Amino acid sequence: MEKSSQIYGIRAIMEAVRANTEIDKVFLQKGLKGDLMRELEQLLRKNDITLAYVPVEKLNRLTKDNHQGAVANVSPIRFHTLEQLMELVEKKTSPALILLLDQLSDVRNFGAIIRTAACTGVDGIVIQRKGAAPVTADTIKTSAGAAFTVPIVKVGHLKDAVFFMQASGIQVVAATEKAEKTVYDIPLTAPTAIIMGAEDRGISPSMLKAADHLAKLPLLGNIGSLNVSVACGVLLYEAVRQRS
Amino acid sequence: MEKSSQIYGIRAIMEAVRANTEIDKVFLQKGLKGDLMRELEQLLRKNDITLAYVPVEKLNRLTKDNHQGAVANVSPIRFHTLEQLMELVEKKTSPALILLLDQLSDVRNFGAIIRTAACTGVDGIVIQRKGAAPVTADTIKTSAGAAFTVPIVKVGHLKDAVFFMQASGIQVVAATEKAEKTVYDIPLTAPTAIIMGAEDRGISPSMLKAADHLAKLPLLGNIGSLNVSVACGVLLYEAVRQRS
Repeated sequence: MEKSSQIYGIRAIMEAVRANTEIDKVFLQKGLKGDLMRELEQLLRKNDITLAYVPVEKLNRLTKDNHQGAVANVSPIRFHTLEQLMELVEKKTSPALILLLDQLSDVRNFGAIIRTAACTGVDGIVIQRKGAAPVTADTIKTSAGAAFTVPIVKVGHLKDAVFFMQASGIQVVAATEKAEKTVYDIPLTAPTAIIMGAEDRGISPSMLKAADHLAKLPLLGNIGSLNVSVACGVLLYEAVRQRS
Repeated sequence: MEKSSQIYGIRAIMEAVRANTEIDKVFLQKGLKGDLMRELEQLLRKNDITLAYVPVEKLNRLTKDNHQGAVANVSPIRFHTLEQLMELVEKKTSPALILLLDQLSDVRNFGAIIRTAACTGVDGIVIQRKGAAPVTADTIKTSAGAAFTVPIVKVGHLKDAVFFMQASGIQVVAATEKAEKTVYDIPLTAPTAIIMGAEDRGISPSMLKAADHLAKLPLLGNIGSLNVSVACGVLLYEAVRQRS
């Protein structure tokens, strides 16, 4: 199992960011000041990289090396850009099938969804840079390794990805219990992007508004909802069924 | 969150077993002898209750009370009998939908499956007494509480349940990648029991042989298989779709 690696030292982290290394999160020593530190902070903010201020003891636990007050967790996978994903989609002969995850936060759900995406021929998964579950060793394990094969795209705002999809002729279907139609009434044979929401809050209202279709799964019992990775599997397989 | 409770003391456990209390597992002190102890061991074996011999330190960690060398974990839920489940099914106007789990061992997968079962109107879940994931606090949490509402049946041998289903006019469909037909080619509108297999080994050969139909899900990528709780959700929702 590949574990996420680390970069430490202020200059090393700055270089890594400038070289577009995929950084999940940066830990900075609380109270540490200086021009170089301020420069790093600005660079991280500009690149939407999550940072946390922690006591020096926490940094010492993260690495035995001389960290100079800064440790960065590097993502174990390489992310794609939206443009790269659309290039892949345009080359295909079959209609696009894309997954947009709106602030899904559980790494095991994320992993299970990546695994299902690989089994259903999903072209790529788009997540938002902030608020999304990171790709950790647990995500990769739950994905059964599919995290290395399914293209994953990080964007600043998921809503921009929705508009991007629509401008490219891809219909956007939001999975929500608030829908009137079930997914069985929505034609999924056309190029389609499916939005799945967060475990607790579902899809954000602005995303629901932007979607072309809202689709629900029939819920027969008194239990309010399905696990999001199960619901995602049912929706993706409905696309597979309709297309076969 | 309800946690599993405990019973301790040899006589207390014997009384609990005789009163049909649902006991998950009994821990006995290694090396402890005596007529009463032997009587308890025989009673547990006769009732197919899992037992483990452990050092006294482990028992002391399990309970602060005077355990006399024996601690039993009581299941947080009440199980049903196969007869009770069939009575429920016979009273229904809609066709039966039953789930048989063959040695599924992960408590979180089990919980997610119970949750999906509740959402798809499954009448009951049948598991084998030995080798199946126990109903723990984690199972209950992952089930979103559905473990308290969906009838769960424990049987000695799952194969007997298969024959019981078939004798009651319920077709048995085994979910396996070894199938030639996809689940979309199997009519699920008739009374149906679906068998799902273990995470690693799938369904045991004798169960596959006993089933009326083998059904697979199309797998489009290079990843070998789906998470079992996701696969189970897709199969159950295919039954819901065909029946709606």
